Amino acid sequence: MKRTAIYPGSFDPITLGHLDIIQRASEIFDHVVVAIFENPQKKGKHMFSVEERIDMIEGSLRELGIDNATAATSQGLLVRYMEEQSIKVIIKGLRAVSDFEFEFSMAMVNKKLNDNIETLFMMTDTNYSYLSSSVVRELAGYREYHSDLITHYVHRRLVERFGADP
Amino acid sequence: MKRTAIYPGSFDPITLGHLDIIQRASEIFDHVVVAIFENPQKKGKHMFSVEERIDMIEGSLRELGIDNATAATSQGLLVRYMEEQSIKVIIKGLRAVSDFEFEFSMAMVNKKLNDNIETLFMMTDTNYSYLSSSVVRELAGYREYHSDLITHYVHRRLVERFGADP
Amino acid sequence: MKRTAIYPGSFDPITLGHLDIIQRASEIFDHVVVAIFENPQKKGKHMFSVEERIDMIEGSLRELGIDNATAATSQGLLVRYMEEQSIKVIIKGLRAVSDFEFEFSMAMVNKKLNDNIETLFMMTDTNYSYLSSSVVRELAGYREYHSDLITHYVHRRLVERFGADP
Amino acid sequence: MKRTAIYPGSFDPITLGHLDIIQRASEIFDHVVVAIFENPQKKGKHMFSVEERIDMIEGSLRELGIDNATAATSQGLLVRYMEEQSIKVIIKGLRAVSDFEFEFSMAMVNKKLNDNIETLFMMTDTNYSYLSSSVVRELAGYREYHSDLITHYVHRRLVERFGADP
Amino acid sequence: MKRTAIYPGSFDPITLGHLDIIQRASEIFDHVVVAIFENPQKKGKHMFSVEERIDMIEGSLRELGIDNATAATSQGLLVRYMEEQSIKVIIKGLRAVSDFEFEFSMAMVNKKLNDNIETLFMMTDTNYSYLSSSVVRELAGYREYHSDLITHYVHRRLVERFGADP
Amino acid sequence: MKRTAIYPGSFDPITLGHLDIIQRASEIFDHVVVAIFENPQKKGKHMFSVEERIDMIEGSLRELGIDNATAATSQGLLVRYMEEQSIKVIIKGLRAVSDFEFEFSMAMVNKKLNDNIETLFMMTDTNYSYLSSSVVRELAGYREYHSDLITHYVHRRLVERFGADP
Repeated sequence: MKRTAIYPGSFDPITLGHLDIIQRASEIFDHVVVAIFENPQKKGKHMFSVEERIDMIEGSLRELGIDNATAATSQGLLVRYMEEQSIKVIIKGLRAVSDFEFEFSMAMVNKKLNDNIETLFMMTDTNYSYLSSSVVRELAGYREYHSDLITHYVHRRLVERFGADP
Repeated sequence: MKRTAIYPGSFDPITLGHLDIIQRASEIFDHVVVAIFENPQKKGKHMFSVEERIDMIEGSLRELGIDNATAATSQGLLVRYMEEQSIKVIIKGLRAVSDFEFEFSMAMVNKKLNDNIETLFMMTDTNYSYLSSSVVRELAGYREYHSDLITHYVHRRLVERFGADP
Repeated sequence: MKRTAIYPGSFDPITLGHLDIIQRASEIFDHVVVAIFENPQKKGKHMFSVEERIDMIEGSLRELGIDNATAATSQGLLVRYMEEQSIKVIIKGLRAVSDFEFEFSMAMVNKKLNDNIETLFMMTDTNYSYLSSSVVRELAGYREYHSDLITHYVHRRLVERFGADP
Repeated sequence: MKRTAIYPGSFDPITLGHLDIIQRASEIFDHVVVAIFENPQKKGKHMFSVEERIDMIEGSLRELGIDNATAATSQGLLVRYMEEQSIKVIIKGLRAVSDFEFEFSMAMVNKKLNDNIETLFMMTDTNYSYLSSSVVRELAGYREYHSDLITHYVHRRLVERFGADP
Repeated sequence: MKRTAIYPGSFDPITLGHLDIIQRASEIFDHVVVAIFENPQKKGKHMFSVEERIDMIEGSLRELGIDNATAATSQGLLVRYMEEQSIKVIIKGLRAVSDFEFEFSMAMVNKKLNDNIETLFMMTDTNYSYLSSSVVRELAGYREYHSDLITHYVHRRLVERFGADP
Repeated sequence: MKRTAIYPGSFDPITLGHLDIIQRASEIFDHVVVAIFENPQKKGKHMFSVEERIDMIEGSLRELGIDNATAATSQGLLVRYMEEQSIKVIIKGLRAVSDFEFEFSMAMVNKKLNDNIETLFMMTDTNYSYLSSSVVRELAGYREYHSDLITHYVHRRLVERFGADP
């Protein structure tokens, strides 16, 4: 039986912290779905469109040679998508205590909606413990890019959007 | 002497987690005032109007048979309202560490404004530890309603607003 | 109906932080029982005997003029004592996040043992947020006493045990 | 390829909280090893011997019909045992923030010792969030047993040790 | 060699909590730069303009007689400003666990951008542990001003903006 | 004026995490005193004697070429030692939330004992966030030594005590 895990997020944009979790999950599960759930009410609140974010996920997976992970998107609820796709495991990365509480609440809500769904938490590598998409966006606003934070593929997309390093 | 406690919040909408706290507080105090403080600067930031929220509080209290609690609203500061009404005790529910820090700051500010006012914290029942008004609103956006989260009365109001379960 | 709350602890020795909670609780409840529960398996692990600790509680309550609080002790479980005495409310002070988690677990265990028992948490005054019995004991070991930490009554008992300030 | 996860702990004694984690892990992995690592320097610090604890694990797994989990013990380091047994995944339950920090440190140390080893965290069911072996031991000291905390098998072992409910 | 530390923030407006940190830092360092970094993308999101906030910092430093601290502003990144000014130390105040995690991430990002930069954290005085600029703004919205929260200089600026105490 | 900071701890034994803090503090202050305060009541509770721990501190400082830091020991209270030596600044490393709360309490107690004393917190490098003396001792009990955790000097002392790697 093929074991699939889903790794949901907004990935605006995907960082090396996300990719570290994906890479490690891809060694435990047969397939990892990197999924963007687009809440219709939050449309337009992200820096990159869903299509751009999916493209950066796919470009980054190719760049790092992670071949059992794919990108996906849905406008529905995570648990309903998982039911349709027969996926039973959610993977989440935990960096800090504030993550922990928010993610626990989400995991409990998801379990309430479907008791067969299980959330597994992986700890973020200490090299990425400070890293988030918002840090990447904030620095990009100053045209600061850092090869420890993002793939070359994402770097090029950010330069297209914000301009090159001075 | 009649002992009254006030339970302030935005209740947008009231959940079974809130009602569990109200019900337990109503067994310790003679009267519980469930109060919405409408910050004039945040007008229009809520999903439901003050009137709709008061109505859902009152409908839910009736539905659960909690008869020594009433709804109230004010545009002033919590402590000034309490002074006018001669109420000395604030009740707050605590779910998690992040609640704890925010509520502690609020309690300290209130004590600064009036040293006779005391805040008592009750722990949220573990069945509701993940539950918040924003979870209810988020799920309602997908027409997902769950009888473990809200009263029938609130359920009907949500269906009126968002449409019935598919 | 007389409303009684119980404030359990080991009080080894009682500090001004404990007494601040007792004083504030004594304004909300008709009577406060300051109670030491002596776990038989931990006998001999405290600096002061149960009798000495009860004496310091009583001496401190007198010194501060808190006349609706009394000291008590039991070798049984807290909830069983409360059932015998028809007490329904436990008061606990919270200083910090670590307190919060421990006290929440205790409150949940107590609720499991008797669902009618309610724990109310009060926040420790910021002047005492660092203060604990173990800080008092540690400093006393160096003959450092501080009138911001303990009553005169407890000060005298500590001097008898450890010797006077140099 | 058979996928095995290890669930390490001291299990003094095993609780329904532990068994909930084991049961849920047993649905994601082909096999779960419930393992006691006996630090030679802490010998004699537990209430039950390693043999008794293994027996209570095995009796509880049988009672709950979890048939792809087994008990094991070792005096070596967790990661060295996993290398010998070709196990790559550690499962841990998280209840609270304090768990989180301790378990994160342990996971980082284990990753340092062997970079191929991955720790997956599952959140404890809210029904068991207050529950720990020490709570069970503490209550048993008062001959208080509760069917929500332990299996019948463990109940019988506790009664043999501490005596029957009054 | 003159030792300079920078104390960055939005200071909207500066509070006595900020000034307590500045005063204590001014006793350890030869000079303290109180700096507002204006993220171009967040322009217009503050209650007071950069000029008004700088004025309130300078007025408050004069009022409290702190003469080795000055106000500054920049539209660039903090670490780039520090490189230009040859400043190596950032001072931050910590009030609570939530501060701690956010500030740690920021400190790690800054260290990533320039490994020679060091962030030193000071604990907020317990008298100010609840205090933040947003508490001051919230209360000012109700024309509530409190001499324990702000300098007279800031008080006058708030009254000009919001009107006098009733 | 020479600026001295004190870095107190039990250093049983000193780790690369401690030495990272010392090294960074030694670039901000003219001199760093690495100090062991031997509580007379805890005598004999450490793995290494005060003399052995001082020796490992001195050997490690030499090995890393940190020449403006020295080791010291005292049986008195930290603040009293600082008064005698005219030291005004305590340096502490923070790894996690649990550190944070404990260290904050200590800092508040020290400020109570002497208001002129200031505690500055530095964040532990993420490479050492999991590292503590107890991790080193635990691993050494299994003859596991790791050059990322300790200096060569400490490694040799541990091998003398516990025996060589198998």
